[in-house]
Amino acid sequence: MSNTFGKLLAVTTFGESHGPAIGCVIDGCPPGLEIHEDEFAHDLARRATGRSRHVSARKEEDRVEILSGVHEGRTTGTPIALLVRNTDAKSKDYADIARTFRPGHADWTYHQKYGFRDPRGGGRSSARETTMRVAAAVIAKKWLRERMGITVRGCMTQMGTLVARRFDWSVVEENPFFWPDPDMIGELETYLDAIRSERDSVGGRVEVFAEGVPAGLGEPLYGKLDGDLAAALMGINAVKGVEIGDGFAAVAQRGTEHRDELTPQGFLSNHAGGILGGISTGQVIRASIALKPTSSLPQPGRSIDVDGNPVEVTTKGRHDPCVAIRATPIAEAMVALVLMDHVLRHRAQCGDVGAVSPQFPA
Amino acid sequence: MSNTFGKLLAVTTFGESHGPAIGCVIDGCPPGLEIHEDEFAHDLARRATGRSRHVSARKEEDRVEILSGVHEGRTTGTPIALLVRNTDAKSKDYADIARTFRPGHADWTYHQKYGFRDPRGGGRSSARETTMRVAAAVIAKKWLRERMGITVRGCMTQMGTLVARRFDWSVVEENPFFWPDPDMIGELETYLDAIRSERDSVGGRVEVFAEGVPAGLGEPLYGKLDGDLAAALMGINAVKGVEIGDGFAAVAQRGTEHRDELTPQGFLSNHAGGILGGISTGQVIRASIALKPTSSLPQPGRSIDVDGNPVEVTTKGRHDPCVAIRATPIAEAMVALVLMDHVLRHRAQCGDVGAVSPQFPA
Amino acid sequence: MSNTFGKLLAVTTFGESHGPAIGCVIDGCPPGLEIHEDEFAHDLARRATGRSRHVSARKEEDRVEILSGVHEGRTTGTPIALLVRNTDAKSKDYADIARTFRPGHADWTYHQKYGFRDPRGGGRSSARETTMRVAAAVIAKKWLRERMGITVRGCMTQMGTLVARRFDWSVVEENPFFWPDPDMIGELETYLDAIRSERDSVGGRVEVFAEGVPAGLGEPLYGKLDGDLAAALMGINAVKGVEIGDGFAAVAQRGTEHRDELTPQGFLSNHAGGILGGISTGQVIRASIALKPTSSLPQPGRSIDVDGNPVEVTTKGRHDPCVAIRATPIAEAMVALVLMDHVLRHRAQCGDVGAVSPQFPA
Amino acid sequence: MSNTFGKLLAVTTFGESHGPAIGCVIDGCPPGLEIHEDEFAHDLARRATGRSRHVSARKEEDRVEILSGVHEGRTTGTPIALLVRNTDAKSKDYADIARTFRPGHADWTYHQKYGFRDPRGGGRSSARETTMRVAAAVIAKKWLRERMGITVRGCMTQMGTLVARRFDWSVVEENPFFWPDPDMIGELETYLDAIRSERDSVGGRVEVFAEGVPAGLGEPLYGKLDGDLAAALMGINAVKGVEIGDGFAAVAQRGTEHRDELTPQGFLSNHAGGILGGISTGQVIRASIALKPTSSLPQPGRSIDVDGNPVEVTTKGRHDPCVAIRATPIAEAMVALVLMDHVLRHRAQCGDVGAVSPQFPA
Repeated sequence: MSNTFGKLLAVTTFGESHGPAIGCVIDGCPPGLEIHEDEFAHDLARRATGRSRHVSARKEEDRVEILSGVHEGRTTGTPIALLVRNTDAKSKDYADIARTFRPGHADWTYHQKYGFRDPRGGGRSSARETTMRVAAAVIAKKWLRERMGITVRGCMTQMGTLVARRFDWSVVEENPFFWPDPDMIGELETYLDAIRSERDSVGGRVEVFAEGVPAGLGEPLYGKLDGDLAAALMGINAVKGVEIGDGFAAVAQRGTEHRDELTPQGFLSNHAGGILGGISTGQVIRASIALKPTSSLPQPGRSIDVDGNPVEVTTKGRHDPCVAIRATPIAEAMVALVLMDHVLRHRAQCGDVGAVSPQFPA
Repeated sequence: MSNTFGKLLAVTTFGESHGPAIGCVIDGCPPGLEIHEDEFAHDLARRATGRSRHVSARKEEDRVEILSGVHEGRTTGTPIALLVRNTDAKSKDYADIARTFRPGHADWTYHQKYGFRDPRGGGRSSARETTMRVAAAVIAKKWLRERMGITVRGCMTQMGTLVARRFDWSVVEENPFFWPDPDMIGELETYLDAIRSERDSVGGRVEVFAEGVPAGLGEPLYGKLDGDLAAALMGINAVKGVEIGDGFAAVAQRGTEHRDELTPQGFLSNHAGGILGGISTGQVIRASIALKPTSSLPQPGRSIDVDGNPVEVTTKGRHDPCVAIRATPIAEAMVALVLMDHVLRHRAQCGDVGAVSPQFPA
Repeated sequence: MSNTFGKLLAVTTFGESHGPAIGCVIDGCPPGLEIHEDEFAHDLARRATGRSRHVSARKEEDRVEILSGVHEGRTTGTPIALLVRNTDAKSKDYADIARTFRPGHADWTYHQKYGFRDPRGGGRSSARETTMRVAAAVIAKKWLRERMGITVRGCMTQMGTLVARRFDWSVVEENPFFWPDPDMIGELETYLDAIRSERDSVGGRVEVFAEGVPAGLGEPLYGKLDGDLAAALMGINAVKGVEIGDGFAAVAQRGTEHRDELTPQGFLSNHAGGILGGISTGQVIRASIALKPTSSLPQPGRSIDVDGNPVEVTTKGRHDPCVAIRATPIAEAMVALVLMDHVLRHRAQCGDVGAVSPQFPA
Repeated sequence: MSNTFGKLLAVTTFGESHGPAIGCVIDGCPPGLEIHEDEFAHDLARRATGRSRHVSARKEEDRVEILSGVHEGRTTGTPIALLVRNTDAKSKDYADIARTFRPGHADWTYHQKYGFRDPRGGGRSSARETTMRVAAAVIAKKWLRERMGITVRGCMTQMGTLVARRFDWSVVEENPFFWPDPDMIGELETYLDAIRSERDSVGGRVEVFAEGVPAGLGEPLYGKLDGDLAAALMGINAVKGVEIGDGFAAVAQRGTEHRDELTPQGFLSNHAGGILGGISTGQVIRASIALKPTSSLPQPGRSIDVDGNPVEVTTKGRHDPCVAIRATPIAEAMVALVLMDHVLRHRAQCGDVGAVSPQFPA
């Protein structure tokens, strides 16, 4: 079940970038949650291409149809199937590279694994599939918010060599970069315009914060909350690194600095990022990911064709100069799905979440 | 099954730090592999405490008994059970902290999750359990080497603020730090002695390399090879970050720099770390992890007890000034287990590995 | 993942009887299998209602749309999604029983489990869902036949009190009952017409045979081939019993009679039904199931409503006097899906099927 | 994970009949359950050989050692490992059949699957392994009884051609056959003595009843309670058939007879055996299994050796004339494990069991 994600809240996705449709099946959702088709629009628009000049021009409508699992506006406990038809798939853009392997892409590896591949728009390996992760997470986010008081939100804090200096959540949704530093928006636009005009791309760092998470989520030892988050986030297209809390900065820290001391009023710091021993502490959970610069560039790169001959490949399709931008809602989605799964897993073994002992004051 | 790791090669571990024994069950191993009890000694000694003054003084004998799954020296295809008795468990060291939560440890989170905990030596959350990961991986490493020509090895490349400048595999096993730079051993010893005399600890970075891995391993989209490696590595005690290939350095790279171009003679670079689209490329797989400084320090830290009263906690047991050292064989183990699992998974769906098309010259 | 079936060939189904659509996602299918949308028609027609006066009059068109996983007519190794729109769902038939529990149905249990239910046509508990099992198995049957030389076929051998006396495969597809005894067709028609005119229903026994199955399939101890077949067959709507080989008749047998002796020319008998110790022997696999008479009857039955008040329930929708008839292709489907899953599972651990030792002559 | 049973309460067993030990790991048990090593003795004695002349003379001591997961007499939520050393394994009894396949046994199939096998006492395929199922279920039974008010008990109702005519639970534990009809004990002893003196064996039928099960357990569609029970029971050694409720008798019933009508005072009958649509109804759950006569007979049977030559095989080890006797506690164990797993699964998705609506009076 390599296309199923989660243990008790299990999301199975299907679909290729330029096939007739993409979709998912969400199994294990508790009954009674109100959900309507128009609730998917907001997060899908945040993820969609075509929103600004800084992302791919592909026009994704991404209208979700609920095929099952919802009756009279409420989840029934049976599998929820969501379908999105592909409407702006321009496969002719890709016809000339059907027999070549784009450098830095999954073309080579899919061919090696399966013997052939669907070359249209990257087929299954396209970030198009992440639409369904975001859609599934609309349900998870709503359930977490309404039932558990948990919220999940993300932002981009590094683009190429530019790093956010201020952190103001109120501006994140007000600029096309999900950027928390209001002073830098013009700088980012200039920077990315330059990258695009050089027909190049650049990486990015995205951070996700989950607030209101009770202590106790996570299943040691091989279903640790941080382990599951790492798998979920590393599995997003273009991600090359995952950190929890201080991440790689912890290497140079001392133990006296890193260990988060406790007082009756709560923890004094959060270097751990809200997870100790694979289980949530009750603090804010903080994860950070590195996204590589996209390899789909409108300038030639050396490669080979399926017969092993040298070729030059130039990507002509519509692509993103910084794929990390659109990764923000995707990363939120993966975190939300992991958290909801773990709430259910905790409830199975230990009963209701938060039942053990009083939490710290918020 | 939160204590089972792997899909087709499934390792279930059990045991607490100061309980009667720790052990594991390895299910799904192909039949016919020769294995003897004395083959476990080498890697368990690499992981063990008590080897030098730079690691915990706990004397772990770690003698493996094979309880099942091996007949006349060969695996039979049935589950292989390995048992290691705990022989030097000094629980009295921990009696005074049974009702307090050590800062930076899983004491607090286990208590929140389960309502109470086995406080002896950290119980289940102790790194003692990783003994069985290393033991299970002895089988995986051997099978990978003999059947697939794959080797997995690791080293530590950063300790606190010290970073390896040279890379010479031949010295890694010759010093107590698994360090690849022969010029720095004295510097490391002085550095770590100072940390220990300050009753503090420091983090580290460990890198693992898998060579000889054929193209085609990995199951998109939710069993990606990098996703599974991330979960496996993040699940090691004290790990706070995971990178594949260039990792977080990719954020500041350009697409023209990062994308690994192909020629008939092979790839021209390996920024990707041997994985594209979640599937192995046939290049060396490279993963890197960040380990935090241990929180078990012989100097007081603020905390609370189970009733919420403020307390000071000083760890008196035997601990490591840099837990990253012993993480090297553990990280190798997790990578080997993931790779063997994925060889079996690939074979199930696609038939024998490497059957699709000729690989590049090595 | 309670709506996913199979371990390596994993089928996830979704959809309600009177929702917009039903569908499935087939994950893990090997790449390269040719498959076209019109290949589903034959088996779906065998399962469909509306084919004769002996089954429900609901007109199911059951046109399969392939949404993913197939490119240029061949499976790609990525998940195959199949969709069937519900076109003749007459929900008004069921409006009056939305608040009552039909006796002998899942109405009561779904309500108890989930707090409410989709009452339209039985919702998720309707046999409508089995359409997708049959559709998924079209792929499994083809792969088993082409790649492994395995065929799976079924027939009904008991209807109510009538038991087949002769066994002639050539007539099974020539009568509306999948019945192997050509002398009894008229008798069956008269019998079932009488049942229907009495507004009653009757049970049936269906047998499935898998031929060409090599020795070695099955994973002891908790993935035994017979264990997995039992789960798959018991999970079909209305099934109350499962037998492998001689089944319950073995209770009264002696060991000297039951044990199938071997000679260099092959087994001398097949009381075991082709499975020993949970692993296939290389003989024909034989499974038998008991289906209860449907509880949906056009005559009143005592029940209660959601408030606990006594009511009388009379089913007015379109139903089958003997649901066992249409269970034949469904049972074949479940057996085929289990077998293909086990071929992949065997290949993962032990390499190619049949590689160990020469089989008996057929 | 073919040696792991259960989804949330996951039991992994290991060990061979004549290896050093057998054992199991129980993962997912809720914390806080009191359990002591001496609580395993009762059920293990019920299952053990050597208790009367009617079962194998092998002397099984079956002393359980708890290796992990229990601290100060209570489960901690971490994996519980149980170990039983094999003390009376007489491997020399089997030395002469190492190269031959006993008819009716798994010798042939294990050899075909794995290429070779551990021949000592049947190795992994021996019923010796069921010791650990019974041991694991001691925990499940206690949890079900204390936390849920659920009890599980079984009896044998048919031995060869003899069928119980009366049903009196009070005598089941008072005779060596777990037989509910006190008038037939002498008849059974005479019958089985004759079978044994003829050096033959006979099959049996065992029934298991679970009382106090609330409505709502079971996960449609591929984790149905009856489907999971069928897999669990069919996976017991020698089982060839499984029925829920009326089972195969339902084939000849009319719908008007079979459907269990409801009144405000409860169901009027229980033909369904307590499960509708794969979910428990709140009634008594009733399952029945058929066990074949053992093939291990002290009289010659035709077979072949590993080179394909014809041989005669006579079993000289210690075996049971009616293996169904000892299957009674094993069948109880499997039912208890399935039920506890499903209580946890239900709680995960739907919250506390029985929370939905008031149950019928008992």
